[in-house]
Amino acid sequence: MSSTDEVTGAETPTVEAETEVPPLTVDVPALADVLDGEYGEIRAAVREQLAAYSSVLSDAETMTREEFRERVKDVVVEVAATGQTGFGFPKEYGGGGDIGASVAAFETLAFGDLSVLVKVGVQFGLFGGAILMLGTKAHHDAYLEPLIKGELLGCFAMTETGHGSNVQALGTVATFDPDTDEFVIETTTPAATKDYIGNAARHARLAVVFAQLDVAGVRHGVHAFVVPLRDESGAVLPGIEITDDGLKMGLNGVDNGRIRFSGVRVPRGALLNEFADVTEDGTYVSEIENPNRRFFTMLGTLVQGRVCVGAAGISAAKVALTIAVEYGLRRRQFEATSEEQEELLLDYGMHQRRLLPLVARTYALHFAQEVLTARLHEVFSGITTDEVTRRQLEARAAGTKALATWHATRAIQESREACGGAGYLAVNRFTALKADTDVFTTFEGDNTVLLQLVAKGLLTDYASDFSDLDQLGMVKFVAGLAVETVLEKSRAHKLLEAIKDALPGGDEWDQDAGLLDPDYHLAMFEFREEHQISGVARRLKRGVDAGMNPGEVFSRVQDHVISAARAHVERLVLEAFIDKVRSLPDGDLRVALNAVCDLHALSSIEADRAWFMEHGRLTTQRSKAITREVGALCRRLRPVAGDLVAAFGVPREVLRAEELLSWSDA
Amino acid sequence: MSSTDEVTGAETPTVEAETEVPPLTVDVPALADVLDGEYGEIRAAVREQLAAYSSVLSDAETMTREEFRERVKDVVVEVAATGQTGFGFPKEYGGGGDIGASVAAFETLAFGDLSVLVKVGVQFGLFGGAILMLGTKAHHDAYLEPLIKGELLGCFAMTETGHGSNVQALGTVATFDPDTDEFVIETTTPAATKDYIGNAARHARLAVVFAQLDVAGVRHGVHAFVVPLRDESGAVLPGIEITDDGLKMGLNGVDNGRIRFSGVRVPRGALLNEFADVTEDGTYVSEIENPNRRFFTMLGTLVQGRVCVGAAGISAAKVALTIAVEYGLRRRQFEATSEEQEELLLDYGMHQRRLLPLVARTYALHFAQEVLTARLHEVFSGITTDEVTRRQLEARAAGTKALATWHATRAIQESREACGGAGYLAVNRFTALKADTDVFTTFEGDNTVLLQLVAKGLLTDYASDFSDLDQLGMVKFVAGLAVETVLEKSRAHKLLEAIKDALPGGDEWDQDAGLLDPDYHLAMFEFREEHQISGVARRLKRGVDAGMNPGEVFSRVQDHVISAARAHVERLVLEAFIDKVRSLPDGDLRVALNAVCDLHALSSIEADRAWFMEHGRLTTQRSKAITREVGALCRRLRPVAGDLVAAFGVPREVLRAEELLSWSDA
Repeated sequence: MSSTDEVTGAETPTVEAETEVPPLTVDVPALADVLDGEYGEIRAAVREQLAAYSSVLSDAETMTREEFRERVKDVVVEVAATGQTGFGFPKEYGGGGDIGASVAAFETLAFGDLSVLVKVGVQFGLFGGAILMLGTKAHHDAYLEPLIKGELLGCFAMTETGHGSNVQALGTVATFDPDTDEFVIETTTPAATKDYIGNAARHARLAVVFAQLDVAGVRHGVHAFVVPLRDESGAVLPGIEITDDGLKMGLNGVDNGRIRFSGVRVPRGALLNEFADVTEDGTYVSEIENPNRRFFTMLGTLVQGRVCVGAAGISAAKVALTIAVEYGLRRRQFEATSEEQEELLLDYGMHQRRLLPLVARTYALHFAQEVLTARLHEVFSGITTDEVTRRQLEARAAGTKALATWHATRAIQESREACGGAGYLAVNRFTALKADTDVFTTFEGDNTVLLQLVAKGLLTDYASDFSDLDQLGMVKFVAGLAVETVLEKSRAHKLLEAIKDALPGGDEWDQDAGLLDPDYHLAMFEFREEHQISGVARRLKRGVDAGMNPGEVFSRVQDHVISAARAHVERLVLEAFIDKVRSLPDGDLRVALNAVCDLHALSSIEADRAWFMEHGRLTTQRSKAITREVGALCRRLRPVAGDLVAAFGVPREVLRAEELLSWSDA
Repeated sequence: MSSTDEVTGAETPTVEAETEVPPLTVDVPALADVLDGEYGEIRAAVREQLAAYSSVLSDAETMTREEFRERVKDVVVEVAATGQTGFGFPKEYGGGGDIGASVAAFETLAFGDLSVLVKVGVQFGLFGGAILMLGTKAHHDAYLEPLIKGELLGCFAMTETGHGSNVQALGTVATFDPDTDEFVIETTTPAATKDYIGNAARHARLAVVFAQLDVAGVRHGVHAFVVPLRDESGAVLPGIEITDDGLKMGLNGVDNGRIRFSGVRVPRGALLNEFADVTEDGTYVSEIENPNRRFFTMLGTLVQGRVCVGAAGISAAKVALTIAVEYGLRRRQFEATSEEQEELLLDYGMHQRRLLPLVARTYALHFAQEVLTARLHEVFSGITTDEVTRRQLEARAAGTKALATWHATRAIQESREACGGAGYLAVNRFTALKADTDVFTTFEGDNTVLLQLVAKGLLTDYASDFSDLDQLGMVKFVAGLAVETVLEKSRAHKLLEAIKDALPGGDEWDQDAGLLDPDYHLAMFEFREEHQISGVARRLKRGVDAGMNPGEVFSRVQDHVISAARAHVERLVLEAFIDKVRSLPDGDLRVALNAVCDLHALSSIEADRAWFMEHGRLTTQRSKAITREVGALCRRLRPVAGDLVAAFGVPREVLRAEELLSWSDA
């Protein structure tokens, strides 16, 4: 609930002040170019492709589940033929050799049917990515070319019924048999059944199976193996049992299934051996000695999946907000300012308040995603090679995925409600959008667990000595040091320096700065981050020092841990947006985007203003002033709201909201 | 984001303090009795009935839409035969003559398939309710008995494509033709098409049609008419065109459709003439002279629909939370307190924080709904007859519906995420629950619009002079008085008196009271309500006094208006919970329910603590203490969490989450 005491236009001169501010103007194609960034051509090609198969969106309603799955598979193979799903693979195997392009293409593909998108993600991101990253030349030679073409379909068999987040505790076992030079894959318990595996129920010929490696009675932790599931005719192979996960909330064009292995034998070469191997004489070898670190290194190579899910969430939010904003600019209800004509929905203050901060946040996340994609590209193209950067990338990907997918859920829900009953009809896209994206918040890493991963990086400063710590290990580690050392090791102290540089003014920096000063916004975000991280470190240490069980300490501090991680990612997001605005040449576009950035920053501070007040960085007067300013920014952006969503560039064919968008009072 | 600076267990003695508090114990059957209240027997019978047709829940996935609709219709007719859908009708027509029982039965029915529920609501609540409330003896004699039995199916044709919230502006016209003594019903524009009408696409033989009454060229506003749609064989009658609304996000067992009328003639007696009539000689007569007031009086009689939707939202939240809490008590993930065994989800602090305040709020809303049902019963059984009480009932129903349905959306979403990927499988209920309830926030009144209705009542003190004001009228009215007069007329001043009575201590009442004192909680809620209502009045007045267009003033103050209305309803909800706790005899049950009430109150204050700080009712220290106390209450309630959801009494057969609830690590 927000509230303002002052009447707008009486005690405060807001009305007059606003009329003095020149109206914003937006050159939509120019803004669209800024959003599309360096991959504009690729995005344009994907948009064209999206339009070509947009009928999937409506056909999905009348097809049987089997038909839908086949149709989606066919589309995936068609898209593969255009090369749009292969950018992430090396050129020598028919790929595009451009990781950044692969994310941009995927992000754009996410405007369309999301079963197609997720099947693309499973085939090329997860299955293909595992072969590429965890495998070596023999695997690449054997599989990459046909899988890039979509001729060889596979799945990524990691999650089990009993273990999703805690992958280290998987129950599937791969035992090396020196007599036959094979691994024997076994599903040891019902809970060890591979579950929710995309492509498994129908189409996968191969699986990359994650299992505990057992060599001569010694367990070496989770490793990945290439395991054939079906023969050329599609028949399931002996020892393998596949069942269907059945109807899901959404994404029913993807064939998720369960796999059980009973004494399935694969040759020694089936081990994806980039990070560890079993030699001809049955010896386990790995350059990474610590099993925990080996595990996290293997998993770290799969970061692209999370980058892609976050991107998809942002695109889905764009689709929903485009529909809701455009509808709000057409639909009228109740006489308000005139007795003759009803008022446009978007001329209501509450409607602006509901939608425009979400539009602004979508812009912020878009630019944060752009930075993340660039970092991914640098690390995986070998442009940057140091370990800390790689770990920062993993944390950033995890955190952005969490924020982006929660944002998608919220933006889609708010957009649906803003379209009333019409938004409930399947013909108007929200049905599919809501059902399909719902799982984004928990797949490719549960958002809460991902934010814990972010916090671990922050508390250990991504140092390699601590990168192999699990949750309990981290608590013990933090507790084992003096708080000063933790703070020194964390990012916290660097942030306070940054604030002092940007906004000199001693302890009063937050009171002297203008409300619309980006340095002020950033300083607020940095202060929050620093304070929360150091607070977590203190609480963890004190709890353990007081003799509590470290796990119990963690449980009690957990909401603070999550909050600190979120504060960190929020700062990265705002920073990306401010950097983007500052990179633009002076002119109308920069002025408009700056106002969007202000709205994002201030509505974020407003949402967390209790925390800022509690920690002495916001007086009650200034807090109320921020609420007023958010209202004023919404009114300022109202005339360009349609332009802001038009620049997202969602192809009309896949908006699928004709009833809403052709709205007329007649 | 919430945060706490102090480490639990070090500077603050929370750990010790908590161990001193005796553990809570809950007698589940006794608590279930408290929840079931005076209609326990009826609820028990409905639960039995629910179990009998629980297969609809799973069959829905394999049936075609046509089959699903037929099946739901058959179930509705079956349930009608038990008498469980007829409690709200007079005994002389075969009803139960007990309005309160009708809501209790509907609320319980909402544990099951929601298409069945909504079809029941359409047939007996909306269609039947309109005949009963707006019609007179001739209509009752003609229609009530067969409609109660489910032999005569009908629909409630109010909403149009162009007007949902603003019913006064409907476009359908009923013109009196004195020559034939008939009304001619006409859909004047495409936007005047009746839309989203439940029962219309397939099953309704009759419709209650809302149309602008035109007598001799004079418009008298919206009135309701009984119009036949189909003949005995189900064929659509001449002049009527019905199309299907097609696939929806959910509730696909209900046949929503669009209806267009072209010169459809009905006899003069088709006018439901409780509040207005056209006489034999073609004269329009009504005891209510003001057309606005007549309109609001007619609509007010339909309040039961909103009461029922709110009840359904609360029941749906109970289903979701039962599944999520029970799953959290079975499923383990990550080693936390022990190296040997992974931790139960509900032993994580964050998981408690996500679910337990939602459970507490569900209890609060349940008891608020119980009070609302009792008020409805009093007013519609003629036990209370004054107009102000009736208007308060309407506002209370509107506000409770808004809060309850938003709560349902949030609780279901959080519960789904708390069940991870398994929650995404349709076999585990969330798919249907989420899709079916989504429209609750916008049907039977858009929640935002409903809260505006609440605000109107507050600002005019439900006085009959002002009950006929529309939105613009209200702004002008408030602006036309001195602020003091508005405040005098509003409820605001009464609340401040209440605070002073409950918590003497002058201006310091909020600092001296114990954090767990219900009088303190209530005083905080009352203060917020009073302050926000008077603030709205001031802002409206100042804006208009400053020369702004009243509509623009309203637009700017709208979020404050909504916020004030919400604060009012939140106070009613808390009051209901506290009253219930105080009505219980001393003992374990009262102690446990009191802790649930504390959690609801404090987590609500925590969520809005920024506002309380901004308005001087919470110091930053006390605000942080509340956050700590919420954490402590979650830990205190953790051992009885399973009991709290068990007492909701959702029949196992309709939980439909066997996979989740039979979870085992094996």
